[in-house]
Amino acid sequence: MAGSVTGEIFKISTWGESHGAGLGVVVDGCPAGIDLCEEDIQAYLNRRKPGETKYSTPRKEGDLVRIMSGVFEGKTTGTPISLVVENTSQRSKDYSEIANYYRPGHADYTFDSKYGFRDYRGGGRSSGRETIGRVAAGAIASRILKELGVEVLAYAKQIGPFQCSLQSFDRQAVEKSPLKMPDPEVSAKTEDYLAGKMQELDSVGGLVECIVTGMPAGVGEPVFGKLDACLASGIMSIGAVKGVEIGAGFSVVDKTGSENNDDFYMGADGKIKKRTNFAGGILGGISDGDDIVLRAAFKPTPSIFKEQETVNRQGQDIQIQIKGRHDPIIVPRAVVVVEAMTAITLVDRLLVGMTSQIDSLKKIYLG
Amino acid sequence: MAGSVTGEIFKISTWGESHGAGLGVVVDGCPAGIDLCEEDIQAYLNRRKPGETKYSTPRKEGDLVRIMSGVFEGKTTGTPISLVVENTSQRSKDYSEIANYYRPGHADYTFDSKYGFRDYRGGGRSSGRETIGRVAAGAIASRILKELGVEVLAYAKQIGPFQCSLQSFDRQAVEKSPLKMPDPEVSAKTEDYLAGKMQELDSVGGLVECIVTGMPAGVGEPVFGKLDACLASGIMSIGAVKGVEIGAGFSVVDKTGSENNDDFYMGADGKIKKRTNFAGGILGGISDGDDIVLRAAFKPTPSIFKEQETVNRQGQDIQIQIKGRHDPIIVPRAVVVVEAMTAITLVDRLLVGMTSQIDSLKKIYLG
Amino acid sequence: MAGSVTGEIFKISTWGESHGAGLGVVVDGCPAGIDLCEEDIQAYLNRRKPGETKYSTPRKEGDLVRIMSGVFEGKTTGTPISLVVENTSQRSKDYSEIANYYRPGHADYTFDSKYGFRDYRGGGRSSGRETIGRVAAGAIASRILKELGVEVLAYAKQIGPFQCSLQSFDRQAVEKSPLKMPDPEVSAKTEDYLAGKMQELDSVGGLVECIVTGMPAGVGEPVFGKLDACLASGIMSIGAVKGVEIGAGFSVVDKTGSENNDDFYMGADGKIKKRTNFAGGILGGISDGDDIVLRAAFKPTPSIFKEQETVNRQGQDIQIQIKGRHDPIIVPRAVVVVEAMTAITLVDRLLVGMTSQIDSLKKIYLG
Amino acid sequence: MAGSVTGEIFKISTWGESHGAGLGVVVDGCPAGIDLCEEDIQAYLNRRKPGETKYSTPRKEGDLVRIMSGVFEGKTTGTPISLVVENTSQRSKDYSEIANYYRPGHADYTFDSKYGFRDYRGGGRSSGRETIGRVAAGAIASRILKELGVEVLAYAKQIGPFQCSLQSFDRQAVEKSPLKMPDPEVSAKTEDYLAGKMQELDSVGGLVECIVTGMPAGVGEPVFGKLDACLASGIMSIGAVKGVEIGAGFSVVDKTGSENNDDFYMGADGKIKKRTNFAGGILGGISDGDDIVLRAAFKPTPSIFKEQETVNRQGQDIQIQIKGRHDPIIVPRAVVVVEAMTAITLVDRLLVGMTSQIDSLKKIYLG
Repeated sequence: MAGSVTGEIFKISTWGESHGAGLGVVVDGCPAGIDLCEEDIQAYLNRRKPGETKYSTPRKEGDLVRIMSGVFEGKTTGTPISLVVENTSQRSKDYSEIANYYRPGHADYTFDSKYGFRDYRGGGRSSGRETIGRVAAGAIASRILKELGVEVLAYAKQIGPFQCSLQSFDRQAVEKSPLKMPDPEVSAKTEDYLAGKMQELDSVGGLVECIVTGMPAGVGEPVFGKLDACLASGIMSIGAVKGVEIGAGFSVVDKTGSENNDDFYMGADGKIKKRTNFAGGILGGISDGDDIVLRAAFKPTPSIFKEQETVNRQGQDIQIQIKGRHDPIIVPRAVVVVEAMTAITLVDRLLVGMTSQIDSLKKIYLG
Repeated sequence: MAGSVTGEIFKISTWGESHGAGLGVVVDGCPAGIDLCEEDIQAYLNRRKPGETKYSTPRKEGDLVRIMSGVFEGKTTGTPISLVVENTSQRSKDYSEIANYYRPGHADYTFDSKYGFRDYRGGGRSSGRETIGRVAAGAIASRILKELGVEVLAYAKQIGPFQCSLQSFDRQAVEKSPLKMPDPEVSAKTEDYLAGKMQELDSVGGLVECIVTGMPAGVGEPVFGKLDACLASGIMSIGAVKGVEIGAGFSVVDKTGSENNDDFYMGADGKIKKRTNFAGGILGGISDGDDIVLRAAFKPTPSIFKEQETVNRQGQDIQIQIKGRHDPIIVPRAVVVVEAMTAITLVDRLLVGMTSQIDSLKKIYLG
Repeated sequence: MAGSVTGEIFKISTWGESHGAGLGVVVDGCPAGIDLCEEDIQAYLNRRKPGETKYSTPRKEGDLVRIMSGVFEGKTTGTPISLVVENTSQRSKDYSEIANYYRPGHADYTFDSKYGFRDYRGGGRSSGRETIGRVAAGAIASRILKELGVEVLAYAKQIGPFQCSLQSFDRQAVEKSPLKMPDPEVSAKTEDYLAGKMQELDSVGGLVECIVTGMPAGVGEPVFGKLDACLASGIMSIGAVKGVEIGAGFSVVDKTGSENNDDFYMGADGKIKKRTNFAGGILGGISDGDDIVLRAAFKPTPSIFKEQETVNRQGQDIQIQIKGRHDPIIVPRAVVVVEAMTAITLVDRLLVGMTSQIDSLKKIYLG
Repeated sequence: MAGSVTGEIFKISTWGESHGAGLGVVVDGCPAGIDLCEEDIQAYLNRRKPGETKYSTPRKEGDLVRIMSGVFEGKTTGTPISLVVENTSQRSKDYSEIANYYRPGHADYTFDSKYGFRDYRGGGRSSGRETIGRVAAGAIASRILKELGVEVLAYAKQIGPFQCSLQSFDRQAVEKSPLKMPDPEVSAKTEDYLAGKMQELDSVGGLVECIVTGMPAGVGEPVFGKLDACLASGIMSIGAVKGVEIGAGFSVVDKTGSENNDDFYMGADGKIKKRTNFAGGILGGISDGDDIVLRAAFKPTPSIFKEQETVNRQGQDIQIQIKGRHDPIIVPRAVVVVEAMTAITLVDRLLVGMTSQIDSLKKIYLG
């Protein structure tokens, strides 16, 4: 968990600023032998693309990815995979004003505190564009999970006061909503609500839920390397996330043990199952073979067009009105970022988890 | 975030099982020159001691710590500090029954899935006694924070349906409640509630809030090493935690930007301040100089005396009744564990944060 | 020390294959505030460029570097610096033959053993072109060292049987020799020797010595993080290096303590000095303020044009004659790689070393 | 490679000072299911025990190891294994004089430079006793290697001017020499030589060679995680080592490619072999299935009884004569330390190496 590097075996290094030359990621530790092409990654990146609906900024970001290394004749070689997306349509003049003051809810002030100065153009490294590297790496992680029969699906469970639930593990139901809410009626109502907030020059928060199916039992390390601790780190590292919960999450606070414990039973398939899944698929930091369920709370976009009070670099109290292009809600575009961070984390833990038993070592090296 | 090692510079390795020879921690990367003695650590360990009230198990755990290395003439030397607590009063026969089945809500099944077998005595490595190493390391981290004027205080904000708030940063108010609830009236009502649940052979969950004062602005790394991501990882790695939130946390979901943004202003002391602290002291993953506020949701103790259904190692559905000594609520003893993990995380980030500017390097090496 | 990531604070991720789309590096953890431009890096890369003399391959490698992130208005921002060099002149057809057999002295067989297959074009990831990422990162490390008054200089101390020594810390004397041997007479003789070996279709090994001046005392960690252990790792990780030594190195084997100990004395400048430097500037794994001296043994280029015996992928014994363009000696182009790995390692240790004393923490955070 | 923690998966944290309460190690990431008892570790520790011959210090170090965690019913559980050796016979008064001056060839001065002060008793953390933690962890690593058919054997190849070679992989031949020289005649001559140097109040350096048999091909990572780079780091981190070489090592400097390349051929057993082993079992940083061969140069014990010049903490030039008990040669006791660091490194790389191919992941998780 250094600045921009994460993972123990599946180690990713992301880089790039909103208005620099480009953004990208280097993925080290990807196993050899996986089919991978640029389209696999582009498909993921397109899911975070803005401009599809009125709730995201209309600019056309030509986020075209290039695989620079680590893939040969359509397969990963085991060496680092470098993915580069060049910035094409960034116009620096839009952002010149923010060079001199600290936007509320943004990282302008804390970057200055830490580094002494900052690349202020479009938020620099703290821009939402930073997630390009994560999503690109997530596309690779997702390909690895597919080989193991594991799938990750996230959706918008709540935006403002409007809630919905995923009725079945159905990616189409999520994708056809512009807000990634799999209930069409709720999605439509939320669109109206958002339209109202946009007219008020305001923004809205939301909740993303992520479900993982097919996860084998026994993955995750006790103590600090717990699967839920790693997921919490990965998800909380997404800008704008203020809370993470697993399974029953914060609702356990006023539950009793008899309500919250998941009883075990023998499944018809001879596998051990749980009658409920308040645990969210993780017990003692280790996967239990059930679906992994997590949720992330996203704060409302801090860039609002309403007048706000703040301080400039000269230390004067001032009033500001932010201009430019800003999504009134982060959640629909963040759904794929949550999937990406989940996939990246699971792959790293699956790789580390291979080493838990001496019999596994023998299986690999002695055949 | 390997199994039992965490931290980049302040690197701790905890070890020990509930019923093994002992438990402890090695702290590598502690700066030299800090006053430290066994009493400093013992005082922390005593705060996680059970047996003070009827809500914790009556056994006397003689958890006496020894400093085995890294301290000379009362000061840390910069070399690894090894802390050992020998197990003295563990009786293995109490736990022999659980060798053969999987307790609901516990890690018995997942440890078997991961490792093929487990040290079943008292939960082995997944016992609450595992936190001894964390708390011992937390005592050292807390000493370092004190040198920098940083203080960490946690308390029980909610147990079952009963809530309270910390009115001022007052450790005494917390400590004098057996439940670590700083409101005496709420604490008393909660005691009655707990007594009822104990009679029902059940257990209860709760919420711990942790406040950090004096934290300098500019600490934490962008992207994966965000201060909140590191805290989320540290806190979620505590057994029984199912959710972590920072500042306004999950309540941001239905807030608007104008409600949730914290406006900046110039303080009378010439420092930049925020009018509110929905951010919880962290913006863009970097501390903003305000109090850091986080909350952790603890599930009810999974060991309940009510009859439960489960599966044994032979794959048969069975009914069990757990015996032995088990706290009906984890929260009061977990308060110091939350403080410890917070302190450990902050120290590591403070140490890493020293390297952010070339001017700091010059200050250290060129004087 | 994962595959292609190294460093604890100054963390670099290199990527790229000989004949892929490009090569490069992401440098995470570089302090903010350092002047840096593409010319700084290009100058280093040019030093590893072939084609300057008859002892290196004549192909023109247009290794032009682009800074993709992490630099704003001419200064490092503290966020990851991504450097990309696109491959322009690679012709895959030259290498198609080696797809099917294992060249002696090369990594073809071991890559196949590890990964199941390999990108065989030009040696793929095990090509000398892999060092582009190292050298680019080394240019940045070198800029940081300059701020602290530390300088790194390497040269060819021996090629085949011809030896020389660096008379003074004079980069010009090194650079004006095509073989990087600072003694013009020895350099000329060695050129003749090399010409002979080239006619014999053979190649030659050599020895690189590297000197570091201005290194402050007190840097390096005891035990595993010893400065010499980190340097040994960094240098041995350069392809073709078969040995590393510090100071008196292997010559200590038949020395006595009274011969090998460096006596201390008080320098006229009030600093503690050593009368000799058999230690090579490192005692107990920590810098002693004296020059750091290390040497690396490079094996002869394994690609020779003489007929050799080997095995093909079908498991048949065959005879081969390697074609294409290959330097008859690695050393002159490796000199800058040794400097780069030394600089990268020193910077990481300097950054980690900032955290050794509580007084340093106070100096940074309390002013 | 932090101070006292090393390894990516097989992660060890050593601790302890010469005259503190004890020394030890925590081994995290050891696979579950390996038979292990205290005798396995004690046997290794006994090999580094002094006092067996006149060439080592006569003090009786009762280095009795206790397994404090991570082993249950005779098998490793996969959780951290904590090993503790209490210091019993240390007498602090012997060393009080060195508190005030800097012994030539020792780390006294550099520890003071780094930390501001030091635990001067017996050299503190820079004492040879620091290797207790390494050797204890090496005993565990060695058990893991045994499960995979890998064996590590080191011996004294040279002491002063006297050299010998290992004729066969015969541990007995090494162990029966008090100097760990497997040629009885050379061993006897060297004993005489050492006796002379002791009379001259001097000490002697030497060379340790280490051979690994049974290593599978395909282990080690390209670029920074090369197997030889990791070994170089591990071996150079042993106090008193000034050089490390693999296979032909420094002798490659004046070799030609045709002399140094190892031709491949098909073995009668259907495995690919090399006709020679100048590579020392590693090509491109990855094991080639042949014996791994490395050598380490140990400097003469810096503690000599001859009069030496140095500086005291007050900055005065002084003359000193070191007293106490000091081995005139480090090598015989270092042999097991070299084996330990080699085994620790190999195990970590074997564990990381499990993750190289997607087919291995499938083998573990899909059966």
